[in-house]
Amino acid sequence: MIDIISVTDKEEMARRTARIAEALSANGIDAMLLSSFANLYYATGRVYCGYAYITASGEAYYFVKRPVGLDGSNVVYIRKPEQMAETLAANMPKTLALELGIASYNAIERLKKVFDGTAVTDATPIMCKVRSVKSEFEISKLKECGIHHVESYGRIKKMYHEGMTDIELQIEIERILRDEGCLGQFRIAGDTMELFMGNVLCGRNAEVPSPYDFAMGGEGLDASLPVGANGTIIKPGNAVMVDMCGNFNGYMTDMTRVYRVGNITPLAERAHQLSIDIHHRLAKMALPGVEAKSLYEEAVKMVKDAGLEEYFMGLRQKAGFIGHGVGIEVNELPVIAPRSRDVLELGNVIALEPKFVIPQVGAVGIENTYVVRRDGLECLTNAPEEIVELY
Amino acid sequence: MIDIISVTDKEEMARRTARIAEALSANGIDAMLLSSFANLYYATGRVYCGYAYITASGEAYYFVKRPVGLDGSNVVYIRKPEQMAETLAANMPKTLALELGIASYNAIERLKKVFDGTAVTDATPIMCKVRSVKSEFEISKLKECGIHHVESYGRIKKMYHEGMTDIELQIEIERILRDEGCLGQFRIAGDTMELFMGNVLCGRNAEVPSPYDFAMGGEGLDASLPVGANGTIIKPGNAVMVDMCGNFNGYMTDMTRVYRVGNITPLAERAHQLSIDIHHRLAKMALPGVEAKSLYEEAVKMVKDAGLEEYFMGLRQKAGFIGHGVGIEVNELPVIAPRSRDVLELGNVIALEPKFVIPQVGAVGIENTYVVRRDGLECLTNAPEEIVELY
Repeated sequence: MIDIISVTDKEEMARRTARIAEALSANGIDAMLLSSFANLYYATGRVYCGYAYITASGEAYYFVKRPVGLDGSNVVYIRKPEQMAETLAANMPKTLALELGIASYNAIERLKKVFDGTAVTDATPIMCKVRSVKSEFEISKLKECGIHHVESYGRIKKMYHEGMTDIELQIEIERILRDEGCLGQFRIAGDTMELFMGNVLCGRNAEVPSPYDFAMGGEGLDASLPVGANGTIIKPGNAVMVDMCGNFNGYMTDMTRVYRVGNITPLAERAHQLSIDIHHRLAKMALPGVEAKSLYEEAVKMVKDAGLEEYFMGLRQKAGFIGHGVGIEVNELPVIAPRSRDVLELGNVIALEPKFVIPQVGAVGIENTYVVRRDGLECLTNAPEEIVELY
Repeated sequence: MIDIISVTDKEEMARRTARIAEALSANGIDAMLLSSFANLYYATGRVYCGYAYITASGEAYYFVKRPVGLDGSNVVYIRKPEQMAETLAANMPKTLALELGIASYNAIERLKKVFDGTAVTDATPIMCKVRSVKSEFEISKLKECGIHHVESYGRIKKMYHEGMTDIELQIEIERILRDEGCLGQFRIAGDTMELFMGNVLCGRNAEVPSPYDFAMGGEGLDASLPVGANGTIIKPGNAVMVDMCGNFNGYMTDMTRVYRVGNITPLAERAHQLSIDIHHRLAKMALPGVEAKSLYEEAVKMVKDAGLEEYFMGLRQKAGFIGHGVGIEVNELPVIAPRSRDVLELGNVIALEPKFVIPQVGAVGIENTYVVRRDGLECLTNAPEEIVELY
């Protein structure tokens, strides 16, 4: 019997535990131990310092270090991981999935000693796969994000003043988002990216390659955080790409729109329209069962047919994907990339972001977040797609 | 010969490489391989996707995956970690320090295969120790942070309006900080804490225990990020504690001040004054060579003498420290805690935060960032310490 400690919907949480249990059974694994915040939040509906232990038969223990005061018959307070062995005692698993792709080497080595004699396997890909298929409950949270995201972006065009820099505009957008209820936290899986609340790129700054695995780069304001706005003054003829944080409730939509002052070059206009056309094409193609890489291939084909491949996904350094799953974190499965082995499933939520960097002008193209439905993609970020003039 | 790829001061970077080399020699380790952003930024002056390889004799290779275009005779572009073995070839180390406390289990296992036959040890504590002693260059960056931090806090008192909530005030403070040049990124070592730009706590929300290892808690706005402001309306008699991000240049000062509307209880006033008194006492005590735990003990003694221990460092859940090192990340060495084995060194930069949670009123007490100098602590966050009335 599962006694959920969630602060949200208890039925939903029971379904999630059941889905994890099912994945464990399918992989012949006895139990899973989670401690990363994103997986804990998924599996228990809350964030705490400790572990969630879930078995293939659907039992769950919540081992908690902090905070004090959590209730539930299967909540066990511990000071250190070694105490978990006492609780599990005679029921130690034969095989256990740990977060080998997330937790530090030292943390895993310590857990391996706690579960001495247990065969250890990796929980990371299992949880990525489980989390990649969203429930209607999760989709409703993402829809809520999309509504607030769109509402916030709608207020951007009035924020501009002559002589404004990219970072000044970004600070205005941050304010709009926070006022709209954005939590600010931009959750990224893994340790290869950092970003503060999103990315605003103006003009030639879009040409600066990034150390991170984002679709777009930018120099940033400081060597310690080399991404995004760099103090460029927004001038007539510039494209300003806005790709800011859509985390309003623990889930995130991902959305990009482009703004301009005055006119931008026909090449940039054409590339932006091609991005929109790619979205519309892929939205019909992206049915359950379709290979993720085929979406990438279709986008590249359209770009080549238009003769715009030199600008596609960066100039000097090109991103190797045009889309990605999104949910609790911004880089979930499936990955829309040439060597992706992912196959689209009903309930996947994906952000598509075919973008172009046009020399001297800046970055163009849009990003929307979609749910994979039986008949194609349902858009969660419904806002005008054309380039918006700032005033 | 070291050919530094740093974007900042080259002499400083050469000194840092020498300090790491010295620590390796002292520990009998041939080389170290770093890839976490905080350690890379320390060791190379920039952030990139890849590795810094530093030997005990002071040689360095910079293995870079992204961005394209970094110059330097010892910059080696790689696509995958296995290629490092080709470059090092005949010079493979006998012992190698890896970030076992930071990098994922999978990442370390892969590196162990790359350095097959090499004995692996943990780079994490070595780098924590090296980074805990700041150079004058680093102190000058922290001083700059302190000046901007103080300037920003000076503007808070005018932001209040009747009926304002804690989160509305926090958003105003975020805006002030960003306008002042704050980068926003709140860097925390390890995986046990998350926070967006800092913490504003009003009234009873300060009593809510946190899952995180911060000095203070708060419910937060959403179950996905249970810390800080929760929408409490700021009322007469409340204390409002402001502990917001001081990252203006890749380094961070840590600073807390308290605000009020109308009068707060004499108990809260007395506890706040005691926090100030603790600061002044510890500022004289904290000489190089002094045990960090003795500062903690002195603070606790002062609190007990005043009969305020039930409110000290939390009510239902108490933080186990009153101070910590600060620099590139907010939780560096030394730790000012009862079981700390750290001994203060010349050039340590520490934040002291003896705080109290007063029932019904809120959190009081201040936090300052200090440099450990020959004759005691030099304060980097010089602002009035008393409680400031909002208007």
